[in-house]
Amino acid sequence: MILLDEERIDIVPGTDYKIIQNKKCFSYGTDAIFLSHFAKPKGTVVDLGTGTGIIPLRLIYKRKVQMIYGIEIQEEVAKLATKSVELNGLEDKIKILHMDLNKLPEIFDKSSVDVITTNPPYMREGGALINPDENFAISRHEIHCNLEDILRTAHYLLKPQGKFYMVHRPDRLVDILCTMREYRIEPKYIRFVQPKLDKKPNLLLIEGLKGGRPDLKFHEPLIVYKDDGTYTDEIYEIYGMEKEEVRGKK
Amino acid sequence: MILLDEERIDIVPGTDYKIIQNKKCFSYGTDAIFLSHFAKPKGTVVDLGTGTGIIPLRLIYKRKVQMIYGIEIQEEVAKLATKSVELNGLEDKIKILHMDLNKLPEIFDKSSVDVITTNPPYMREGGALINPDENFAISRHEIHCNLEDILRTAHYLLKPQGKFYMVHRPDRLVDILCTMREYRIEPKYIRFVQPKLDKKPNLLLIEGLKGGRPDLKFHEPLIVYKDDGTYTDEIYEIYGMEKEEVRGKK
Repeated sequence: MILLDEERIDIVPGTDYKIIQNKKCFSYGTDAIFLSHFAKPKGTVVDLGTGTGIIPLRLIYKRKVQMIYGIEIQEEVAKLATKSVELNGLEDKIKILHMDLNKLPEIFDKSSVDVITTNPPYMREGGALINPDENFAISRHEIHCNLEDILRTAHYLLKPQGKFYMVHRPDRLVDILCTMREYRIEPKYIRFVQPKLDKKPNLLLIEGLKGGRPDLKFHEPLIVYKDDGTYTDEIYEIYGMEKEEVRGKK
Repeated sequence: MILLDEERIDIVPGTDYKIIQNKKCFSYGTDAIFLSHFAKPKGTVVDLGTGTGIIPLRLIYKRKVQMIYGIEIQEEVAKLATKSVELNGLEDKIKILHMDLNKLPEIFDKSSVDVITTNPPYMREGGALINPDENFAISRHEIHCNLEDILRTAHYLLKPQGKFYMVHRPDRLVDILCTMREYRIEPKYIRFVQPKLDKKPNLLLIEGLKGGRPDLKFHEPLIVYKDDGTYTDEIYEIYGMEKEEVRGKK
């Protein structure tokens, strides 16, 4: 395997796997790590907007999952993810598909997927200045897919009672809940992520159930830092690392 | 003024006013106190489902409010609230209307109200066992009005850019946000109430803006108890009391 100049190999937190990242593209964030900790994968899983493949690599580790499909619209990023899958010899477990998620109904049967995960672009179209670097912009802004596209696709793919897991920003909560309900993926659990115990949330993890009845529950918030500025025990646990290692990974 | 056997006079927390409560009816809870702390009243205010009138009595105290209308469908409860208004000599500031809030368009002009407050029944129709005592049931369950009725009425009454303040349960969050948006009262701020710092929320306070653009923000959570089981400073402040007094009021 040949690495390009801008590429580097990192360890996938909490696993023995390796992942290739490229300085020119969007690197995975804590969001993807939290989502893959929050989600309960089983059977056939589809990760919408998989980026470098961090979520499939985390979800497959020591879990009973049949197959994970990582969908990525950016060709360069999809190639990077495919290289990471090959680097770990996981070709029979993870398949990266370079395509527009809106085209998935052309290759997947309706109601054929058990679990959907997604760490989508957070920013509303026209909602903020767009990063001039196209790779970053596509990962951050709803340029190629918005919440409607994601929920429409998830509704098509998921089996009845199939699970939908997403990480997103609290300022989009109204859009998230209303669009989920519109596509009959009922929000069942929310877990807010807070920088500290007494701070407002800056991320949210949400679980939806296709065809579920209305009944939303909350988990205790996921707190990142203790008052003294060090990570909480749960963060160490999620990263599967010793205290010194996590500090370096921030 | 003559009090019935089941009636008693309490102090309205944080004010010099008195309030009459009746053992046979629903007494106000911390929810109403938190809501009247959260809301910013001005001009003409309508409190939907005012009960004993606790919210108008709290909102009028030392504030520049022109008039507060408290709407209450239960005749016995509305009478109690009217007695409390008279007891405090506030007839020129608070008017209790015994009526179905769905009939408000018959007596109020459209877009004539600056602020709506409401502490509505929390439980979905058919969602739980109903208390056999009718007074309690009407206060707790969506028998006479549901979220749709409240938001439809609020949309009718509020001026453009008028404010809507509600206290409700987090398990109804999807219903709340979607119904608010449906009636073009955009959710702008949420404040969760948590029993303790590390616990999940058990109440939520929400502020909506008629005709507002999508942009939801969160306040720091309102924490009720400290780790040692005593009230937090904010609770003492909201109740406007010394520490010993609040303890007795729980």
